Amino acid sequence: MTLQLGVLISGRGSNLQAILDAIAAGTLDARVRLVVANRPDAAGLTRAKAAGITTAVVEHKAFGDRTTFEHALVALLTRASCDWIVLAGFMRILTREFLSAFPERVVNIHPSLLPAFPGLDAQAQALAYGVHVTGCTVHLVDEGVDHGPILAQTTLEVEPADTRDILAGRLLEKEHALLIATLAAIASDRLSIEPAATGDARPTARWRGAPPRV
Amino acid sequence: MTLQLGVLISGRGSNLQAILDAIAAGTLDARVRLVVANRPDAAGLTRAKAAGITTAVVEHKAFGDRTTFEHALVALLTRASCDWIVLAGFMRILTREFLSAFPERVVNIHPSLLPAFPGLDAQAQALAYGVHVTGCTVHLVDEGVDHGPILAQTTLEVEPADTRDILAGRLLEKEHALLIATLAAIASDRLSIEPAATGDARPTARWRGAPPRV
Repeated sequence: MTLQLGVLISGRGSNLQAILDAIAAGTLDARVRLVVANRPDAAGLTRAKAAGITTAVVEHKAFGDRTTFEHALVALLTRASCDWIVLAGFMRILTREFLSAFPERVVNIHPSLLPAFPGLDAQAQALAYGVHVTGCTVHLVDEGVDHGPILAQTTLEVEPADTRDILAGRLLEKEHALLIATLAAIASDRLSIEPAATGDARPTARWRGAPPRV
Repeated sequence: MTLQLGVLISGRGSNLQAILDAIAAGTLDARVRLVVANRPDAAGLTRAKAAGITTAVVEHKAFGDRTTFEHALVALLTRASCDWIVLAGFMRILTREFLSAFPERVVNIHPSLLPAFPGLDAQAQALAYGVHVTGCTVHLVDEGVDHGPILAQTTLEVEPADTRDILAGRLLEKEHALLIATLAAIASDRLSIEPAATGDARPTARWRGAPPRV
């Protein structure tokens, strides 16, 4: 089925661009119904407008609390008929207020092999730790920071020449490919999400065939 | 140079066996001077004796405190002229008392891509989390749990059929290969350790050429 995507951004939106490019190339059966930024200066808004996508700015600073901010986001995304939400460099933690509106349908991409290096600047964290292998992770969002069930992961070897920015750039290519491959698998029913069996368990990603190697 | 190894074990000592096999096969320039177990029933003691290696049992329970236990270990290992110490399934945390006797010369192998899944049963932790990729790590030991500077890492994809024991078995083969490759690189001077530049920094592993892929 064609995914009806809402994409949340805070910055340049390079993962949004990857989605738009994949849709244009026919490799992803999806439509971006709405792009929402929580900052009016998010450069990704320009990309979205250039592609003829409806955009909105919902400044978290303008809301008195997290709950009303998230209610505003939900209202916009549901009115636009979004059924899957992609966090593409969206730098706000989402709570149950938001997540319960899209149960097990909020996806995030993170530039590390989670659970290693959650949070800000995972690339710098990985370099500082001195790992030999890092990667990126596409996962369902839950209330933890970069914590939800893993949908797909891919690895990248750290090279001696890697600075933070070189590594981030190399990871970004992997992020784009892994995010597109994962969304395409959801759209074509090769990846499905089984709800948690019990209250303690987490939902499980079920792949038909092997997860993507990118 | 030929590494003079002291190997500490708590259990069956399969990594000890891998070391002994690699020495016998001529792929590792080392000599195991002493194997110490902290449990008299550690099955690895039998392997060591079968290979003609001197063994000792130092039961941590027999010592009033950690310091005297570690002093006894250091006394045995230094008397046996060990210059590198390998923790091969050794299930006790070591403190500064021990580590200061062998600065940056205590090596551990851990069945995860650290810093993910430190501590006990990393394989079960990885399965429970639902990662798609895990691996193993050879690192220098510091006072944290599975925390010291990384010397080498290798990855392993988790398969749908993996149970805890299947995954542990598949990782064990990787552990053996990575540990031997790392020790061989130290012996042949392809891997050297640079001490920490400042008090805050960690020592750094410097590879001449690429780290091993196993």
